[in-house]
Amino acid sequence: MPLNRLFREGDHEDLAEERRLATFDTDEMAAIIWGSKEALSRRREITKRVAEHPELHDPYSQAYMTRSEHMDHAARKATGMLRNLDALDANPMDGSEMYHLTNEVIGISGYPLALHGIMFIPTLQAQCADDQMHWLEKAMTMQIIGTYAQTELGHGTNLKKLETTATYDAKTQEFVLHSPTRTSMKWWPGNLGKSANHAVVVANLIIDGRNYGPHNFVVPLRDAETHMPFRGITVGDIGPKMAYNGVDNGFLAFHHYRIPRNNMLMKHVKVTPDGKYVPPAHAKVGYSAMVHVRAHMISTQAAFLAQALTTAIRYSAIRRQGEIQPGQGEVKILEYQTQQHRLFPQLARAYAFIFTGQAVRVIFQRVQKDVARGKVDEMAELHYISSGLKAVVTYLTGQGIEQARMSCGGHGYSKASNMSELYGVAIGGATYEGENMVMLQQLARYLMKSAEAAKSGRAVGKLVDYLVRSSEQRSAIDRQPDHDYSAHLKAFDKAAKLQVMKAYERMQSLRAQGLLEEEAWNANAVELNRAARVHTRQYIARTFDEHVKAVVHGPCREVLLDLLHLHLNYELLDMAYYLLEDGYLSGQQLDYMKEDMYRLLARLRPNIVSLVDSWDFSDHELRSVLGRRDGHVYENLYKWAQESELNRTQVLPTFEKYLKPMMKQAREQSKL
Amino acid sequence: MPLNRLFREGDHEDLAEERRLATFDTDEMAAIIWGSKEALSRRREITKRVAEHPELHDPYSQAYMTRSEHMDHAARKATGMLRNLDALDANPMDGSEMYHLTNEVIGISGYPLALHGIMFIPTLQAQCADDQMHWLEKAMTMQIIGTYAQTELGHGTNLKKLETTATYDAKTQEFVLHSPTRTSMKWWPGNLGKSANHAVVVANLIIDGRNYGPHNFVVPLRDAETHMPFRGITVGDIGPKMAYNGVDNGFLAFHHYRIPRNNMLMKHVKVTPDGKYVPPAHAKVGYSAMVHVRAHMISTQAAFLAQALTTAIRYSAIRRQGEIQPGQGEVKILEYQTQQHRLFPQLARAYAFIFTGQAVRVIFQRVQKDVARGKVDEMAELHYISSGLKAVVTYLTGQGIEQARMSCGGHGYSKASNMSELYGVAIGGATYEGENMVMLQQLARYLMKSAEAAKSGRAVGKLVDYLVRSSEQRSAIDRQPDHDYSAHLKAFDKAAKLQVMKAYERMQSLRAQGLLEEEAWNANAVELNRAARVHTRQYIARTFDEHVKAVVHGPCREVLLDLLHLHLNYELLDMAYYLLEDGYLSGQQLDYMKEDMYRLLARLRPNIVSLVDSWDFSDHELRSVLGRRDGHVYENLYKWAQESELNRTQVLPTFEKYLKPMMKQAREQSKL
Repeated sequence: MPLNRLFREGDHEDLAEERRLATFDTDEMAAIIWGSKEALSRRREITKRVAEHPELHDPYSQAYMTRSEHMDHAARKATGMLRNLDALDANPMDGSEMYHLTNEVIGISGYPLALHGIMFIPTLQAQCADDQMHWLEKAMTMQIIGTYAQTELGHGTNLKKLETTATYDAKTQEFVLHSPTRTSMKWWPGNLGKSANHAVVVANLIIDGRNYGPHNFVVPLRDAETHMPFRGITVGDIGPKMAYNGVDNGFLAFHHYRIPRNNMLMKHVKVTPDGKYVPPAHAKVGYSAMVHVRAHMISTQAAFLAQALTTAIRYSAIRRQGEIQPGQGEVKILEYQTQQHRLFPQLARAYAFIFTGQAVRVIFQRVQKDVARGKVDEMAELHYISSGLKAVVTYLTGQGIEQARMSCGGHGYSKASNMSELYGVAIGGATYEGENMVMLQQLARYLMKSAEAAKSGRAVGKLVDYLVRSSEQRSAIDRQPDHDYSAHLKAFDKAAKLQVMKAYERMQSLRAQGLLEEEAWNANAVELNRAARVHTRQYIARTFDEHVKAVVHGPCREVLLDLLHLHLNYELLDMAYYLLEDGYLSGQQLDYMKEDMYRLLARLRPNIVSLVDSWDFSDHELRSVLGRRDGHVYENLYKWAQESELNRTQVLPTFEKYLKPMMKQAREQSKL
Repeated sequence: MPLNRLFREGDHEDLAEERRLATFDTDEMAAIIWGSKEALSRRREITKRVAEHPELHDPYSQAYMTRSEHMDHAARKATGMLRNLDALDANPMDGSEMYHLTNEVIGISGYPLALHGIMFIPTLQAQCADDQMHWLEKAMTMQIIGTYAQTELGHGTNLKKLETTATYDAKTQEFVLHSPTRTSMKWWPGNLGKSANHAVVVANLIIDGRNYGPHNFVVPLRDAETHMPFRGITVGDIGPKMAYNGVDNGFLAFHHYRIPRNNMLMKHVKVTPDGKYVPPAHAKVGYSAMVHVRAHMISTQAAFLAQALTTAIRYSAIRRQGEIQPGQGEVKILEYQTQQHRLFPQLARAYAFIFTGQAVRVIFQRVQKDVARGKVDEMAELHYISSGLKAVVTYLTGQGIEQARMSCGGHGYSKASNMSELYGVAIGGATYEGENMVMLQQLARYLMKSAEAAKSGRAVGKLVDYLVRSSEQRSAIDRQPDHDYSAHLKAFDKAAKLQVMKAYERMQSLRAQGLLEEEAWNANAVELNRAARVHTRQYIARTFDEHVKAVVHGPCREVLLDLLHLHLNYELLDMAYYLLEDGYLSGQQLDYMKEDMYRLLARLRPNIVSLVDSWDFSDHELRSVLGRRDGHVYENLYKWAQESELNRTQVLPTFEKYLKPMMKQAREQSKL
């Protein structure tokens, strides 16, 4: 039995051959990826249970569904899944298990209850006062379906400018919700369009003509029995999107719509019956929910990237095209250096991201405990690093998925590959939960403060200690680094330091030219973003390194070291700009790194299928004809194609209506 | 009246304000973009005529269509368009006019007759023998609908390994077409699935057991009256794709299907009735069709990129979000340096590409004339440069469209923006007509031969004369280049020279290490691709420069010089790696270029809307709610959303079927 545990008799021989080459146990690696052997076996158990419940499957590929069909099947599967949590052996309190279960049953394109779990319940948990817990209970038991409505047609990023108003009427002790302009319509909230009958609505609290800024209100939207919207409410679906079309993102407008005073969420703030406003004790309440989502996104993006690479690398092992040596027969496209260079460094990133995600979750849990004890020191740092990671990881993941898709040639373009949906879903992350450019700017503020501190001899946070560590003028990277890549890691520190300080100095010089603070910031914004990116990539490289060095299982550590070293070379070459400019790296050192990278591509080649297999995605979860574990791609592409909507009839109505008359007329004219 | 000719009363004031700032006449610029004033007025006339024919429009957004609906409307519009060419004032013999007409009427997502015009007719034109012209006539008059079937399930790039066979049966004087394996099914040809009743099929010609390689055969697929496939033919649609879903890409398998001997296209090769094979006089026949398509692709990709930027830049002028200076009110997102840096260099690329496309078409026409006179010298160079351009332009266009989409924030993700379809269609070009990696390798072969020649003192082609021109050791780029950017242009030459020679030297060294020629090539493939990319970007920069300098109209030339200079700085910064490594550029020179780039972003800012308006895309052609000429985005987003399939009923069936029972049960349980 090969060390690759996904090996099965009857598989495509080209894949079987790859799996026999594994130098490490893929189950050991899978446990490292998913956190523990226990977590891995829980994943597998859930996968197995879902497989045993065909009523929770799709009757045909999601690529063939209209949005109505998609919504219908998603609702059927989601309610069925919730009804059967016991049988499915999933723990509803365990986020990772529920995430995996949802991926297995629903897929990645969303469903009518998605926001209920991700946003509605957490908001209620965080903001219900003691006498408002009935909302939470109703939500938890699924007596109501809710969502979270913040973004408006005209405003996303700048919450201060949201336009929806909630005006307190002390006479009736009600809030009057109103959408004063077209742009004030709520726009985008998931499940708002057709599914939710409640929403937490963010609106400007107005009392006696004074605007207290955005606050949260629990708002009943639709009748529990008929599901018809209440009077004063206009609600609907915003139409199809690039991906995520199993979600009914919605619009919502209020026309002087009244809710009781106690529908304002009052754990932290209050409006008394007579209309007195009691402000929150701390300013940054509710802040950690956003950080949580971003920290979580790093891992989900890693998995998206890994899914794309699982498909691309398996397919590259069974696709044969062209001969490298004439007469020797066609080779697997995986043999081409260009294909390896397209895919392997991306896989290294997927590993780097999953480990970074694990690291950030550890910090998150620590911060959460600290905050509960009133200790908030690390909270800001966590916010900054998760902002930078969110931006960098979503962007690089999108790039990587597209490289993976294109590396599959034409078949990657077919929805049978599931690649375009994967891309659409993953790249959505560059926009939602804080647009990437804004995220980078937030991290940059921290970096500039740190640069200021470093410059004036004050202490800096651990995240940026490279700013104050002494560093060489020239890198020590040499021809044969063997397993000592410390010089590479130092080069990341140096790159971050150089660019952060460069952006800082430029800021000073713009100020010196007489620009106002805000003008200077905007005139420096591109350099600031560069600083944030380089810093984040330094963080990822350092985290990857620490994680790999801590791996106990020898054969896994060996191959992970290869991946890590590929990563260090590839990323440094990509960022060389920042280091060559300063003369820290020489052209010759770059050549050493290139040669080392090419050596590592070849070295990783025999293990590469096993490295994607280790992610342990089931075929059901992957939903890709090209990425099948058994490698039997071509016959299944044909099976898949036969289900095409256009193949339901041999002759489309277009023939009789348009094509035949055109040809007939032409034939008649030719006879004249 | 502002110099921006798209200015209209009643437009969104934020856009009107931009248009008043134009320093050049947008009609003059549009004539430069589209080749001449005459070409521009022809475009506009066609746009006007199409607007006058509502029966050639879509009844609702293509984003809402199922594939069947999409096909149906596309067939209706395509046949209607062909019937009305006179009324639409379009010249069927003019490729540009037909291309524009098709964009206006059909859009970019394909239609049932697309391949008929692009591939079927040109192949017949090139390969029908004198006694086969009846095929061409039938195709030209639309008595038949054809396509071109080459790619198979198992093989795209490597034509030599196509598996479909056409075996000559001298007894009956017929060819027997057969698909011997699953992977030999034709797969991907556009319109093959449901629309075409004929195809030019590429199959291995077999006579007396000998395989003469791939040849072209005219094959009737479906009955003219019933449209049912003939016996021996299995044909259908391959299913939905990332984009282009108005096209029925198809599969096709033959089961010993017989066609007459004279259905082989015999202009250049022959099979005599007794089965003698008469080979072609020249080896490279049919080669120019591919080159033509690739040369054409440069311009269409430029237009795709420009469409995305038209949408993004107009939208950025009406979207306000955040304040730069607190209390000064929210600014247009176009004011942010990060937004400018995201969009303006991409617009410079769109201009660079459209001019490069014009230049390559001039070469193509010259080569075509030369070849007709038996002169083939420049043909190879044209092949190489169009291969490189195809790869580089499609990749950069895809990147640029995605930047444009993401720069629109959430609304860019909605199909209302039309951005994701634009991306899907454009990026398809990275795969079809020669996969990009393969294209780069082809150019690299030429570059390696040229490097060899340069090394041994032989003459090189004009394309690579930088290899033999003497160049400075250090760039002369200085702080204030003013309008003299000759040092920048020399830096492109230098970058190309350095990387081409580097790849060449590495090839030598791999050979010296004992690798076989083909192994060495593969072990060097990544460096070779880099060389091909840098070379191509040098070609684009040089071509852009030549084109702008030739512009006669002063105010247009002024702003084009700004765009060109932005391009030179941006691209060199992006490619700095190749120049820093060698010490040709210093860190300080990079800083000069950055400052110059930031200066140019600010300088282009007032003209930027006019620079996209100059592309003269009609709203109908753009199909983007965000990109509307009048800037009235928000109210039209709402209108667009109301048409959503999910809004046809207020309450979806999912409520009664799944959501209500779930909530009801929960409520009942809570009462227990």
